Amino acid sequence: MLLKIKEKTDPAQIARLRNTLELNHLGHCVSKTKTQTVIGLEKALPQEVMQELESLGCIEECLTITTPFKMASRSFKPDRTKIRIQDTVIGGDQIVLMAGPCAIESEEQLRSIAHELKKANVSVLRGSAFKPRTSPYSFQGMGVEGLKLHRKMQKEHGLLIETEVMDVRDVPIVAEHMDIVRVGARNMQNFNLLKEVGMCGKPVILKRSMSATVEEWLMSAEYIMAHGNHEVILCERGIRTFENSTRSTLDLSSVAVARQLTHLPIIVDPSHAAGRKDIIPALSKAAVALGADGLLIEVHNRPDLAKCDGKQALLPNELEQLSKELAQIAQAVGRWI
Amino acid sequence: MLLKIKEKTDPAQIARLRNTLELNHLGHCVSKTKTQTVIGLEKALPQEVMQELESLGCIEECLTITTPFKMASRSFKPDRTKIRIQDTVIGGDQIVLMAGPCAIESEEQLRSIAHELKKANVSVLRGSAFKPRTSPYSFQGMGVEGLKLHRKMQKEHGLLIETEVMDVRDVPIVAEHMDIVRVGARNMQNFNLLKEVGMCGKPVILKRSMSATVEEWLMSAEYIMAHGNHEVILCERGIRTFENSTRSTLDLSSVAVARQLTHLPIIVDPSHAAGRKDIIPALSKAAVALGADGLLIEVHNRPDLAKCDGKQALLPNELEQLSKELAQIAQAVGRWI
Amino acid sequence: MLLKIKEKTDPAQIARLRNTLELNHLGHCVSKTKTQTVIGLEKALPQEVMQELESLGCIEECLTITTPFKMASRSFKPDRTKIRIQDTVIGGDQIVLMAGPCAIESEEQLRSIAHELKKANVSVLRGSAFKPRTSPYSFQGMGVEGLKLHRKMQKEHGLLIETEVMDVRDVPIVAEHMDIVRVGARNMQNFNLLKEVGMCGKPVILKRSMSATVEEWLMSAEYIMAHGNHEVILCERGIRTFENSTRSTLDLSSVAVARQLTHLPIIVDPSHAAGRKDIIPALSKAAVALGADGLLIEVHNRPDLAKCDGKQALLPNELEQLSKELAQIAQAVGRWI
Amino acid sequence: MLLKIKEKTDPAQIARLRNTLELNHLGHCVSKTKTQTVIGLEKALPQEVMQELESLGCIEECLTITTPFKMASRSFKPDRTKIRIQDTVIGGDQIVLMAGPCAIESEEQLRSIAHELKKANVSVLRGSAFKPRTSPYSFQGMGVEGLKLHRKMQKEHGLLIETEVMDVRDVPIVAEHMDIVRVGARNMQNFNLLKEVGMCGKPVILKRSMSATVEEWLMSAEYIMAHGNHEVILCERGIRTFENSTRSTLDLSSVAVARQLTHLPIIVDPSHAAGRKDIIPALSKAAVALGADGLLIEVHNRPDLAKCDGKQALLPNELEQLSKELAQIAQAVGRWI
Repeated sequence: MLLKIKEKTDPAQIARLRNTLELNHLGHCVSKTKTQTVIGLEKALPQEVMQELESLGCIEECLTITTPFKMASRSFKPDRTKIRIQDTVIGGDQIVLMAGPCAIESEEQLRSIAHELKKANVSVLRGSAFKPRTSPYSFQGMGVEGLKLHRKMQKEHGLLIETEVMDVRDVPIVAEHMDIVRVGARNMQNFNLLKEVGMCGKPVILKRSMSATVEEWLMSAEYIMAHGNHEVILCERGIRTFENSTRSTLDLSSVAVARQLTHLPIIVDPSHAAGRKDIIPALSKAAVALGADGLLIEVHNRPDLAKCDGKQALLPNELEQLSKELAQIAQAVGRWI
Repeated sequence: MLLKIKEKTDPAQIARLRNTLELNHLGHCVSKTKTQTVIGLEKALPQEVMQELESLGCIEECLTITTPFKMASRSFKPDRTKIRIQDTVIGGDQIVLMAGPCAIESEEQLRSIAHELKKANVSVLRGSAFKPRTSPYSFQGMGVEGLKLHRKMQKEHGLLIETEVMDVRDVPIVAEHMDIVRVGARNMQNFNLLKEVGMCGKPVILKRSMSATVEEWLMSAEYIMAHGNHEVILCERGIRTFENSTRSTLDLSSVAVARQLTHLPIIVDPSHAAGRKDIIPALSKAAVALGADGLLIEVHNRPDLAKCDGKQALLPNELEQLSKELAQIAQAVGRWI
Repeated sequence: MLLKIKEKTDPAQIARLRNTLELNHLGHCVSKTKTQTVIGLEKALPQEVMQELESLGCIEECLTITTPFKMASRSFKPDRTKIRIQDTVIGGDQIVLMAGPCAIESEEQLRSIAHELKKANVSVLRGSAFKPRTSPYSFQGMGVEGLKLHRKMQKEHGLLIETEVMDVRDVPIVAEHMDIVRVGARNMQNFNLLKEVGMCGKPVILKRSMSATVEEWLMSAEYIMAHGNHEVILCERGIRTFENSTRSTLDLSSVAVARQLTHLPIIVDPSHAAGRKDIIPALSKAAVALGADGLLIEVHNRPDLAKCDGKQALLPNELEQLSKELAQIAQAVGRWI
Repeated sequence: MLLKIKEKTDPAQIARLRNTLELNHLGHCVSKTKTQTVIGLEKALPQEVMQELESLGCIEECLTITTPFKMASRSFKPDRTKIRIQDTVIGGDQIVLMAGPCAIESEEQLRSIAHELKKANVSVLRGSAFKPRTSPYSFQGMGVEGLKLHRKMQKEHGLLIETEVMDVRDVPIVAEHMDIVRVGARNMQNFNLLKEVGMCGKPVILKRSMSATVEEWLMSAEYIMAHGNHEVILCERGIRTFENSTRSTLDLSSVAVARQLTHLPIIVDPSHAAGRKDIIPALSKAAVALGADGLLIEVHNRPDLAKCDGKQALLPNELEQLSKELAQIAQAVGRWI
């Protein structure tokens, strides 16, 4: 159940309302954005509590939503969410290309790639400064220095920038430097991290965990929304199955299913799903035809020297060619790149 | 290893060659089509056996192929296989639509659907006369009577017809009545059935098992080819995963991977994968953009009365609309419907 | 719904009853064993049909069973099924060991193994004469000659014998020679094969498919029972998952779940699940402690020369040692080997 | 590759050594425990670097280990690790029972359960103060207050205590209050959390992620060890598969496989795997027979009122009964409870 609070309600009223909920042991979260305040509730309210709350005079509307995710559902918001960042709109008619290296490795690397990406109609430069690596002995990323390099590219090339945040303690500095904050697949159910990015003030890309159902994925989006951040971009990146010709199995059905369930934009990362570059063009085309709102693709100028995941990175000119082909498909489904 | 046999080789020579292989305990199959004879071998031949065989003078070429599937591989045949049935070519520039009911239920049902499918640019009428049902108490299909109804529709509407064969004993009668024979997902590793359809003289749709890797899928195609039938159409229909918002997880990556590995045409069945009709248009578009050579879609004029799988069947007019949208995407990737 | 038919009912009465069901389009199967006749129905009968049937006077009892499997359920038969073959009882207090080579390769091989197995308290000699092989070029089994060798060992060593049947056409000859007939994992949903073994008159080991749910597994048992054979032994042999340190993932939970749902005996095949011999003792012990009624284990006297699956075969003396350890665990759970 | 450092080496020497590694861009971690210092390296050292390091005179031994996990491997430490906490030894002959409620809910709840657990030979009281909940609106745990209640029970009942830590910021306070710190399945690849518990000074239970391979599980243990904490207890709790009769599929094979690969103790959590209480006794017996070093079982005095996962909780007297049965099996495999 969701309670929409009237605009300009006195915070003391909200405090009173929460107090009533707590006295009645009713789990809830207050989601306060610039434009609205909504209180999410675990269960439907008992009649008598409902009356008590209504007597406070600050509830505009009470929505009963049957799915376990509430604010993320189309029952809460039937029209699709458009996230505007400077001149780019994610979730609109444009299919937004996000591309860049797996890891930020050096200024030269980043500049060389960023320069090329402009030609491929890329809007967002991806790149990780903090790397979740399976081995403690592997390169763990450039850290804050990487964030600054990324920021520099944003200024030089006019590309928006995004990066992964892995640690609750890093959320403020990442949000300060980036246009978009990314939560990786391994952290999709790191609930404390979700709470922090729910309060960070920047749009969040939420990658689906390799073992999450669509419902769990939307519940993680709900966490971010319930803590005040309604700008969540869902990202499908493959699930774990028995098939071993690709690293994960890209689950495009889930993108189609999620579109029926949520108003949030959905993008697709074919690179991490496939783990091999030869099928990335085919998967990207499929994602665009299916209705994805964007793509997150790994590109590297020297894949042979990449510090991680070089095997799945396209060359900049390969992305440029792919971008042209994707534009044709986008047009066939009434969209553009 | 594959041995291509010279044209017009005396069968007695081939018998001698096989005898040598058997004396040396070398597993093999003789694949004899109208145009060529190829002997598939489990392992590379020892030098001395090779010499013995060559002295027979009937070997045109000896191909060493490193993948476990041999005749199905692009090393054996680099150009894509085109299967021509009357005026329809599967594996060419046209994306071939195959559609129809899950089960053949009655003449009226079939006629009503077939009539509508023509408007949607459908080339092949699907429909099962023998039904693999989870419960022994469920409707098991109309059997041979169903085959005859299907045949009647072929004559009335000029549509090609296909149906599933489940039993080795039914292969001759199914092949006699149908233009295309289908092996279902549950029988993908029913090796004796594969051998029989390998000798049936009609093109075969080979559905991927819910738990088969791409390699195993191609090995089953190899079975059919090794017994003399090189007209195999691979069909992806979803794999079993933990995700439960769809019945199976449509694995479009596998289609992209299989295209790299084999020359055989590949089609996609979004209906059985999804098990729900709302996302079938999205999945169909994705399949076409990705490069599938055709689609196998369930259509029913009265899904509410369907004897099986009504929930996943499109209405004929929904398919007609979808067909128009698919045509746009086909054009964007240089193909047509 | 199940209809128990009175003993000594005239077949003509049953024919009349079936006729009524058919006129009302009610899917059903007549399961006639030596001791009883039961008719299984897809759905509950409408009141008026029920009355019509009752007026025939041959229905002893009408059981409403809510699970999709009926005769396999504990609602139909609360006490556990014991299958007696000569002196061996499967499903009783004894934990029955079944062991032997993957494939029957020669008389010497079989004799050497059979001789050793006696020392390990093995009751049933396993061995396949028809082999489901992924490659058409691999050794496909010795066929009927293999059946005869197996039979010879039965006489020489007093072991019961079992083998796989893959083809509906082979069911009579396999049933004639064997004490137990096995349906492999790849054929668990080869419904026509299930029907044939349902009429073969010998106990059947039904292996769980790599992608079958417990419910589907029991539905396949229902097929066999619905066609008159109530002596079904379920066999868990691992399911397909992402984990790659074993060939399949042995799903012991499913054995525990199935025991709650069915009265049929359940055995475990650790060899095919693991695909490696080092963990077979551990898995076997777990299966016995959990409550399995038997084990199906691969043993070979010369695993290095085995025509298939040598890597997972124990040596006879290793099985002998394991058997002693299993006896300890059996005793701890109130059973014996 | 691992470098064992000589005892009493001057820290300045180690700093010099690390400096050399960094200049050569060689990823590494220094794992310093009370008894030894080991440096883990991503790759084998080039000959010239090796010579340079050896000249420093502080390397006792250089171990080349081919598995990606190094300190967790049996090549590093062939004998099994025994973790002693007060009088309890985990990884020895005793099979250690850990039991308690899913969530710490109140002092009364905890006391009532703790009191009963003593009779069941339980050594460790489980209970979560910080709860990873799928919904932001669900009960999130009692937090620090819960830790204190747990501590109180430890004093009152002489049980060791353990709890989950979800947030890097909570590691110090959790480690201060608990005897054992637990990392949940969803955080198995929360690498920053692994680093923190690697420095916390208390034994760590590391649950396997629902989608982790055995190798990835051991790599996460390696993270903890590489940061100085060698007291890691692996815990299998089920993986995500298509099977839906249980919440997850308990993968006992993985326990058997992990025992071959690592010297660390391994326990099993049947409760979260099954998600239903009826099969927990069977799974627990299987785990003990297989060789698990302990069990982590959910017990609640009032499962109907439990704030989470009540359906899978045993009653205290059910655990007492189970404990007796497990003792029999433990004895059969030469161990005790």
